Amino acid sequence: MATIRDIAKKLGISPGTVSKGLNGASDISEAMRQAVLDAAVELGYKPKNMQNEINPKICIMLENMNYENIDQFGYEIISGFEQAALRKGYNVTIVPMDLRKQTQTKYDTYMLKNGYSGAFLLGFELHDDYVQQLDTTKVPTVLLDNYISGNNYVGYVGTDNYEGIKDLINYLKELGHKNIAFLNGTKNSMITQKRLEAFIQSMNENNLPVNDALIAFGHYITDCAKDYVPGFVKNGATAIVCASDFIASGVIRELHSMGLKIPEDISVTGYDDMPIAQYLNPPLTTIRQDRISLGKSALTLLDDLMHNVSISRIELRPKFIKRDSTDKCKI
Amino acid sequence: MATIRDIAKKLGISPGTVSKGLNGASDISEAMRQAVLDAAVELGYKPKNMQNEINPKICIMLENMNYENIDQFGYEIISGFEQAALRKGYNVTIVPMDLRKQTQTKYDTYMLKNGYSGAFLLGFELHDDYVQQLDTTKVPTVLLDNYISGNNYVGYVGTDNYEGIKDLINYLKELGHKNIAFLNGTKNSMITQKRLEAFIQSMNENNLPVNDALIAFGHYITDCAKDYVPGFVKNGATAIVCASDFIASGVIRELHSMGLKIPEDISVTGYDDMPIAQYLNPPLTTIRQDRISLGKSALTLLDDLMHNVSISRIELRPKFIKRDSTDKCKI
Repeated sequence: MATIRDIAKKLGISPGTVSKGLNGASDISEAMRQAVLDAAVELGYKPKNMQNEINPKICIMLENMNYENIDQFGYEIISGFEQAALRKGYNVTIVPMDLRKQTQTKYDTYMLKNGYSGAFLLGFELHDDYVQQLDTTKVPTVLLDNYISGNNYVGYVGTDNYEGIKDLINYLKELGHKNIAFLNGTKNSMITQKRLEAFIQSMNENNLPVNDALIAFGHYITDCAKDYVPGFVKNGATAIVCASDFIASGVIRELHSMGLKIPEDISVTGYDDMPIAQYLNPPLTTIRQDRISLGKSALTLLDDLMHNVSISRIELRPKFIKRDSTDKCKI
Repeated sequence: MATIRDIAKKLGISPGTVSKGLNGASDISEAMRQAVLDAAVELGYKPKNMQNEINPKICIMLENMNYENIDQFGYEIISGFEQAALRKGYNVTIVPMDLRKQTQTKYDTYMLKNGYSGAFLLGFELHDDYVQQLDTTKVPTVLLDNYISGNNYVGYVGTDNYEGIKDLINYLKELGHKNIAFLNGTKNSMITQKRLEAFIQSMNENNLPVNDALIAFGHYITDCAKDYVPGFVKNGATAIVCASDFIASGVIRELHSMGLKIPEDISVTGYDDMPIAQYLNPPLTTIRQDRISLGKSALTLLDDLMHNVSISRIELRPKFIKRDSTDKCKI
């Protein structure tokens, strides 16, 4: 393992300056501090307080992910993670992240600077700087809903998207639906891609037509519905599968404003089984992701990575929840 | 939950006879006992001693899987599972299984009869009776290397086959090999199928030709090599990728008997990194499966299933191990 002397030698500065850089002393420049930290990461330096295994510091890093109350997607995932972390003696900090901060400090440097021995990342997209740096990171890291190939330090936790979509399509087929539309989430995401593959495969397995005019990428927000729903209806959709309950709530609102009744005129399904799903009018048929277990599994996985067990993937089963937003196809 | 009275009512016998059937008393016929147990399973009866959560009985059930010493594939997997089970207070029994026993007693009935609250299955093939019954079992069950779709009570543990095969093909391509043969394992297995898909995909990604004459299904034993190796050599193979170290050891022996030198004339790779891999002549380039961690992860997964956390999949990363059985392509 690299020492303070190794860092000093590499940069041609004194060990004292290196110490100041590592400890965030105020009498050296920010640029020098950054150079010290980047060199420390490059040489694989690990400070003494991070070698202390009693209460390692880890963080939950979030982007584009609301978590402040139980109606938001991140809330229970974080609760589950924190519960499990507490039991194993980890010291957890929640770190909101944005694109600007990602360009300022490299991922590994950020972790070293703040003394985090591991991290759980939620809400990041594939083109994020930090996600791209995960190909080569040496910081044990768990990603929700994104898979990084070929790096032993990174694992993925999520819910099996294939089974969730398949359950919905099988059920809609049973109800007699043929022209099924799919309003997917944001394009830059692994799960969006997986769910699209699952949609096409499930439609094919059920001998149902896959119609490009009935497939669209929206965003994981309510507002995207109005751009796509009128087109779906015009093109003969009798059911709309949505990639989240929030998208579905927007779809329902849009259908109501068009004077259509749900489920009499058209069926709608959600995804996630957020608390709102049962309070929508009508209550939403959806796929439950067990978010508490996702959080707990993320901690299990991170704990394994921190102890050199290279798990690459933990996947949970989705659960089909039948409510009132789906009914027999009348056409 | 069903009671002894419910079982008695269903079968039209006295509760006393049901008790005798459940407890394996000697004064009722084996046929009656079987009928009682099958009805108990069907009604979801759980005996009081299985509701006792202090030291639940679980089993490791094996078929076609050697595990008695460290040179055999199952040994470390079972060690890892037992270590983790001990720590959680489970009482583990090893149960060798065969095709005949599977036809005698249904899977769920077998578990009830023996008081097992959960099981870890190794070495089973897709067409086995017990694997087919896993579609509907209610006994928490973890399968090594086989995935069951759509049942919350069953989970899969294994090593990412795609990454392992990809690492081998990428490396052989770097060494200049083009005509790469693949001697796969037994056909009736999920991992054999996955590895074949990975082989074809990796060859395509590397712009290498996929030649049907250089692909064969063998078995996971040494002896299968002699049936395929002469054909591979005749058809121009400069490297042979094998689905296990045991297969590779047979391939090496066969190549030697044909007067060929490894790696000078032809490269050979294994899979698993069993202890023999480093003692072969030459020592084998292979893919390590961390078998201790596989066993530990299987227990983690089983423990979660037994506590209603529906994990469907835990996958470990393979590790590329470079030794002396591979070299630059001379042709």
